[in-house]
Amino acid sequence: MVRVDLNCDMGESYGAYKLGHDTELLRCITSANIACGFHAGDPAVMRATVRQAIESGAAIGAHPGLPDLAGFGRRRMEITPAEAYDMVTYQIGALMAFAIQEGSGLQHVKPHGALYNMAATSRPLADAIASAIKHIDPTLILYGLAGSELIAAGERAGLRTASEVFADRTYQDDGTLTPRHLPDAMITDPEAAVTQVVRMVKDRVVVSLSGKVIPITADTVCIHGDGAHASLFASTLRSRLEAEGISVQALL
Amino acid sequence: MVRVDLNCDMGESYGAYKLGHDTELLRCITSANIACGFHAGDPAVMRATVRQAIESGAAIGAHPGLPDLAGFGRRRMEITPAEAYDMVTYQIGALMAFAIQEGSGLQHVKPHGALYNMAATSRPLADAIASAIKHIDPTLILYGLAGSELIAAGERAGLRTASEVFADRTYQDDGTLTPRHLPDAMITDPEAAVTQVVRMVKDRVVVSLSGKVIPITADTVCIHGDGAHASLFASTLRSRLEAEGISVQALL
Amino acid sequence: MVRVDLNCDMGESYGAYKLGHDTELLRCITSANIACGFHAGDPAVMRATVRQAIESGAAIGAHPGLPDLAGFGRRRMEITPAEAYDMVTYQIGALMAFAIQEGSGLQHVKPHGALYNMAATSRPLADAIASAIKHIDPTLILYGLAGSELIAAGERAGLRTASEVFADRTYQDDGTLTPRHLPDAMITDPEAAVTQVVRMVKDRVVVSLSGKVIPITADTVCIHGDGAHASLFASTLRSRLEAEGISVQALL
Amino acid sequence: MVRVDLNCDMGESYGAYKLGHDTELLRCITSANIACGFHAGDPAVMRATVRQAIESGAAIGAHPGLPDLAGFGRRRMEITPAEAYDMVTYQIGALMAFAIQEGSGLQHVKPHGALYNMAATSRPLADAIASAIKHIDPTLILYGLAGSELIAAGERAGLRTASEVFADRTYQDDGTLTPRHLPDAMITDPEAAVTQVVRMVKDRVVVSLSGKVIPITADTVCIHGDGAHASLFASTLRSRLEAEGISVQALL
Repeated sequence: MVRVDLNCDMGESYGAYKLGHDTELLRCITSANIACGFHAGDPAVMRATVRQAIESGAAIGAHPGLPDLAGFGRRRMEITPAEAYDMVTYQIGALMAFAIQEGSGLQHVKPHGALYNMAATSRPLADAIASAIKHIDPTLILYGLAGSELIAAGERAGLRTASEVFADRTYQDDGTLTPRHLPDAMITDPEAAVTQVVRMVKDRVVVSLSGKVIPITADTVCIHGDGAHASLFASTLRSRLEAEGISVQALL
Repeated sequence: MVRVDLNCDMGESYGAYKLGHDTELLRCITSANIACGFHAGDPAVMRATVRQAIESGAAIGAHPGLPDLAGFGRRRMEITPAEAYDMVTYQIGALMAFAIQEGSGLQHVKPHGALYNMAATSRPLADAIASAIKHIDPTLILYGLAGSELIAAGERAGLRTASEVFADRTYQDDGTLTPRHLPDAMITDPEAAVTQVVRMVKDRVVVSLSGKVIPITADTVCIHGDGAHASLFASTLRSRLEAEGISVQALL
Repeated sequence: MVRVDLNCDMGESYGAYKLGHDTELLRCITSANIACGFHAGDPAVMRATVRQAIESGAAIGAHPGLPDLAGFGRRRMEITPAEAYDMVTYQIGALMAFAIQEGSGLQHVKPHGALYNMAATSRPLADAIASAIKHIDPTLILYGLAGSELIAAGERAGLRTASEVFADRTYQDDGTLTPRHLPDAMITDPEAAVTQVVRMVKDRVVVSLSGKVIPITADTVCIHGDGAHASLFASTLRSRLEAEGISVQALL
Repeated sequence: MVRVDLNCDMGESYGAYKLGHDTELLRCITSANIACGFHAGDPAVMRATVRQAIESGAAIGAHPGLPDLAGFGRRRMEITPAEAYDMVTYQIGALMAFAIQEGSGLQHVKPHGALYNMAATSRPLADAIASAIKHIDPTLILYGLAGSELIAAGERAGLRTASEVFADRTYQDDGTLTPRHLPDAMITDPEAAVTQVVRMVKDRVVVSLSGKVIPITADTVCIHGDGAHASLFASTLRSRLEAEGISVQALL
């Protein structure tokens, strides 16, 4: 049976600052990427989010980011592979402790924002992240952009990987995402977004901007948690996938 | 055979900032309390310190502090027990990941600075800290001031505890430390400090400022890592303890 | 003519985190207390808020807080008067630069949260804050709780002060606020809150919880910017004050 | 008379962390670049350093950096010109307040580390920094790498600029510094370093690595404050410059 995981970034509140629609989204998604305090999240938020994920049956993943709360981890920083290794280790460990206390464990690790993007194209950073994960727990699944250096690094390290696709982004002929600053980078029509995902999951292909049909691996779909219609879209997508006979479930 | 542990705060450097004499002190001590990034330490320093501790045979402990790098965790903050529970959890988890990667594990947890002092007298904070530790790993040993609420909380939680004594601090008739702002709070003569420790370990008593002989439990002695003569004092103390037939070793 | 100032905390967003209803509230208030990056606010938010305040004609004030973003500056910290002096200086200076660039200047300084509360009862902290302000610009007005040590310190320093009252808090017989943890600390009925303010401004008295009529100085009223009905309340209060013939205006 | 300024980064300590040899270096240099709390420095350190600079007669400059204490402001971050404008504004304002309180003012602004390097080659960042300075105080002098975009931006903005040269770095044929990762990037012989500076100041030329004599403007020489021999080198350099009849003095 064809299956797919729906993942979403969660636990991005911080102190008095509330962000996201975690409660609603947890009704639709199957894997929660929980912020670990560097780009978002704080210890209280991490615990609350771990609890919510467990209650709703979502698998828990660490979502380590760059140490840049003011920039929400979205600004690239010139870090060394050793720094990436250490900051990912720190954050996975921190989240792991909450998961253990709440009677659960981690399913996966997905780097956040600029760290995710940097690791998609930098082999040294990708290898550092994969290695950090492997040496904490080799059963953790590494989430990365389908076709990226991060997925390749995970495979080299002997980790299980999950190739991630995007519902609301267009793809170029070489299988990479159309950069955001270009026109047509985003799919704004929800129906078109759902259709793209169904095709990626069922047929393992995506139609590029130029109309070319290219192969793609879609183990997990990234659901964006921001935006007013985030949970409506997630719910629609999940229904359509299930109507197509696709099993929506976490990877473990 | 009478035995005692010598512990010291370590891994307190941060980025470009170097602090402490970890390498020298690791030759004498048996348990390393490693800062976890809130009051001191950063991911790179944590890894390096974990490695150094393993190489020198010292047991590794988490040394969680208040989130106050500028104040080095020494300024009291009005935190709730829930906040204490969460911030201790976060920091233990972070250090645990480094210990796992380096092929080791944690022996103990010792709160730092103001958190240590607050937990010594506040039962709710002490219970929160003991509970956080227990729910991560019930075999972790809780270090706390001898006779404090923190030791009592550890016992209530069913944790193994280590009662800590100070070589260079004087004690009052009720067994508490003479507050630092009072005259005679500190023992500045190294010989007197060593003698006090030997007596605490061998005879399980300490002579208070007023001359009273009071019972005390001395499972572990805190070695201060700052000061120019820190490692000389540690080395002298260790030699004297061994000359007295006391086994100097970690608690595990 | 009787006059009063309406002040509100503003500019409390941070990076991706949005907080408050600044735009709506700026239509009603006359003085904006702008967060300076320690408990809330970041450089971009500070500039945007300074601009908004200027556009709406509100006077600009620095709103320095404790260095505790995670706790929103609401957790008491054990700081020395010298630390208070320096952290207030730093934050006033930072905001001042934005005000200068935008063609304006600062009217006032109001400490935030725990710093405000600590300075209300600690003479050394209050003196430190007043002194920091005076040595930057002796024409700055110091906002503080009516009857507090902070107001007394401002007067000792020769600063102009603004005694602040609260619409939605009850008062005790000695003129202090009923602590929040007590029942009846808050006035939840908007009509009662407005009536209390009108009486404080016009008659310079407040009725304590026990029914005693006590004198109070009400130069400025604190409008809380959080809560769903913040701007509605502010607008209602302003209308009522003006209907009572009170001039609602900044202090300069 | 030929003149030159000697500048040095200062005030880089933070809380319990001590860094640099400010006291010794202030005997030799003429302009102090004082860290402003983002990459180094804290409010207490800023005040102490401002005081020390005033006592020793050095001119005071703001030394704003990227918000990256863990990386000491040395890691490039992908910031927008607007972010650069705002973070520079914030930091200049903060230092300005201390200078005012201590009875002085600012002479100059010199960006730190990665911000300095990024502004040396990015015109939009350079323009943003120059503009931020101009709109706070158009009499502030902008320090930047000789021949860089930052100097050009300062000139476009109508600011007075100071072209900075390095004693211990070699230059390439196009007048840029040899990148640090290349061999021969550093001049390790103090005598050679002094000779290079004297020539840059007196003859307004520097000999490139390939032996070419190229023109250079040397208004100010950067003295590195780290390293065991920092103050010895500074003192030697100053003596030699004075022996050559060059007036060593701040720019104002």
